[in-house]
Formats: sequence, structure tokens, C-alpha cells
Amino acid sequence: MPKIAVILSGCGVYDGAEIHESVISLLALDRAGADVTCVAPDIDQMHVINHALGEPSGETRNVAVESSRIARGAVESLAEMDVSDFDAILFPGGFGAAKNLCDYAVAGPEMTVQADVKRVVEEAHAAGKWLGFLCIAPVIPAKLIPGVKLTIGADETTAGHIDQLGGQHVNCAVEDYVEDADNKVLTAPAYMLGPGIKDVAAGIEKLVARLVELS
Amino acid sequence: MPKIAVILSGCGVYDGAEIHESVISLLALDRAGADVTCVAPDIDQMHVINHALGEPSGETRNVAVESSRIARGAVESLAEMDVSDFDAILFPGGFGAAKNLCDYAVAGPEMTVQADVKRVVEEAHAAGKWLGFLCIAPVIPAKLIPGVKLTIGADETTAGHIDQLGGQHVNCAVEDYVEDADNKVLTAPAYMLGPGIKDVAAGIEKLVARLVELS
Repeated sequence: MPKIAVILSGCGVYDGAEIHESVISLLALDRAGADVTCVAPDIDQMHVINHALGEPSGETRNVAVESSRIARGAVESLAEMDVSDFDAILFPGGFGAAKNLCDYAVAGPEMTVQADVKRVVEEAHAAGKWLGFLCIAPVIPAKLIPGVKLTIGADETTAGHIDQLGGQHVNCAVEDYVEDADNKVLTAPAYMLGPGIKDVAAGIEKLVARLVELS
Repeated sequence: MPKIAVILSGCGVYDGAEIHESVISLLALDRAGADVTCVAPDIDQMHVINHALGEPSGETRNVAVESSRIARGAVESLAEMDVSDFDAILFPGGFGAAKNLCDYAVAGPEMTVQADVKRVVEEAHAAGKWLGFLCIAPVIPAKLIPGVKLTIGADETTAGHIDQLGGQHVNCAVEDYVEDADNKVLTAPAYMLGPGIKDVAAGIEKLVARLVELS
């Protein structure tokens, strides 16, 4: 039974982890027989978006506390995560990945990666463990793993940023995923392409099945 | 393509709609070809629970605004919902169903149902439409539809309350559902039984397939 960490970034597409992507991942991992631990950084969210209006609400919320809504209880703190406890790591998407795990949403290709995220990805990569990234989360390995081959779907601007960051972008359909065997990285477009939950689920389920098979 | 309303009660198991149940429902509905509209009451939550600590946080959050996180955008207001627009209605569970859609969580068998929830359930029932309820949400039809046969799994205290409310409780395994053909009500235990997301998904997927077939 492979041990897989799922790194959450809040709870909601516009300021946190994309909820559908996160739940579809957790379900696919459970069905594949993985032993799953949800992990998140214990930091404030970049901001809170009212998801009915699509506008900042002025509230303050904590990434780990809100992630615990998806996990149905306390997540593990990313700062305390020991990479050697896990066989693989999966990052769902949502703007939280680009606002709380790194600052791509505001800095674009000048982005920096949150310190604990950087440590965990670099340690896992150095240890030869497989990493999975959904939706916009692939900007993180694009920054940290030189020459990594990955996908965020087909958006030209974001794909150009991936290349500027040091990655190699590959276009990919929503129901599929991209595998970089040399760097042990799997990526899938998910809601970077949509259009609906069943389309997103198809690609995530394939990626998760492969991640568990490889772990 | 049947039109199905999904009634959300916030975003998070302890104070809102159970996130896994909601997403599994949305995915199963999309895969079954349903046309889905998410709906929620535009009211404050009973309270906000810090899901990492399991304790009230003292914040105030709105049920419709938080439900929009699961819906990935603004939900329809329950107060404005026209039952004739839909072929069937599905209520995911979570404490939100027992705190925001009715007050079962605090009043037990002396509970009352939120006014718009009452109107929508009674209108749909009178119009002969099928209704689905997951987890703890079956306390709502137990109160509103005399003699309805339903399940919340196997918890004896809650099952006793169902009977006191005027329903007939039937024990049911997590991977199954209960059908009351006379009252056109489907119910499944989901996280009232657990134990894991794949078990919960099995029952919800069966219930949703049947709901779409009947609609």
C-alpha cells in the first residue's frame, strides 16, 4: 500500500485548493489502495475570495485550517512533513496552488515557491520519488526541476511562462496526463481546460492510477 | 437530460455540506447526463467550525457564499428556486444539513425545517418528483413526508429520532441505498456510516444513477 501525501492549499477554487480536483484525487487514491495523508502549510491564505461574487471578502483564513474541510479533520503541517514517510506526493490545483504554495498568480514567471513547498518537492525529487501536479500546480516543478516536461493543458500564455521558468510545456487534452519518466513527474490539465467535472475526473483518475502504479 | 437541483448547506462536514458527498454527487450526476444546478439558502450558517480543531471559530459565514466554493461560482438562491424548473432534487449531507437546512443538530426530534427547504421539499413531493437525501439529510423528509421509508445507516439513536419524526427507518449498508417508491424518496447512509471515501462513493453513485433513471 503506497503512502501518498496530498498537498492542499485551502478550500475553494479561487483562493485555495480546487475542491473537485482534491476530492476526485482522494477518491481515486482510496480506490487504488493508497494510504493517503493530507498536508498543508500552516500560513494565512494570500486572501479570501467570496466565491459567489468572485471578489476579495477582506477576511483572513488559514490554509491548513481551510484545507481541513476537504480532509474532514486536521491536516498534517507541511513544515513538519518528513518526505521519507511517503512514496509519492500529489498536488491538486486551484488558485491556492498559485497563491498560497507559490506566488505565480501575482508574480507570473518571476514567481517564488513557498519555503516548505520548495523543500518537500526538492527532497522528494532528490530521493527519486514520483510527484503529481494538477491544473495550475505544474508551475511549481517548472520552477524547481530544470527541464521538466509537463502540461497545464493548452493555454499559450501559461505555457510560455512554464518554458520561461525552465520547464518544457507539452499540450495535453483534459482526459489525459503527461509523464516525464526522467524527472518522475506526472501532470494533468484538470480545470485549466475543464469543461466539466466528468472531463476533469477522467484525466485525474488516469494520473492517480499511474502515480500509485509507479509508487 | 433530466434537470436536477443539488441543495448545498455550506462547505465543510462540521458546519456545512459534506464536501466529499457533494463532489461525488456532482460527478455522478454529470456522468449520468444530468443538467445540474447548485442551490443554497442565502442565510448565515448556524456557526463556523474550525475543521482542524473541531471547535467553533466565532466567525460568521453565509451558507450560499460558502456553498459557491463547491459549485465553483454563485449558487442559485433557495428562496428563488422554482420547483417546476427541475425533475428531481438531491440533498447531500454534512452537519450543514442538520444545522442550516433544519435544526436537527440542536433540537433533535423537536426539530423544525428552514422555511425555503420546507417549501421546496413539499412542492416537489406534491408534484410527484423524486427526492434524494444523503447522510443525515434524511431527517428532513422524516419531518415533512409522513410515513416515509428511509435510512441514515444503522445509528440507533438517530434511527429512533427518524421514527419519532414520523418516518420509518430501515438499516442500510454504506454501499447501498433505500428506495421508497410510494413517496418517491431515495436515501443513502454515506458518512453516517463511512468508513472511507470509496465506501461512501459506492452508495452515492448507486443512488444518483437511480435518481437520474427515475427522473
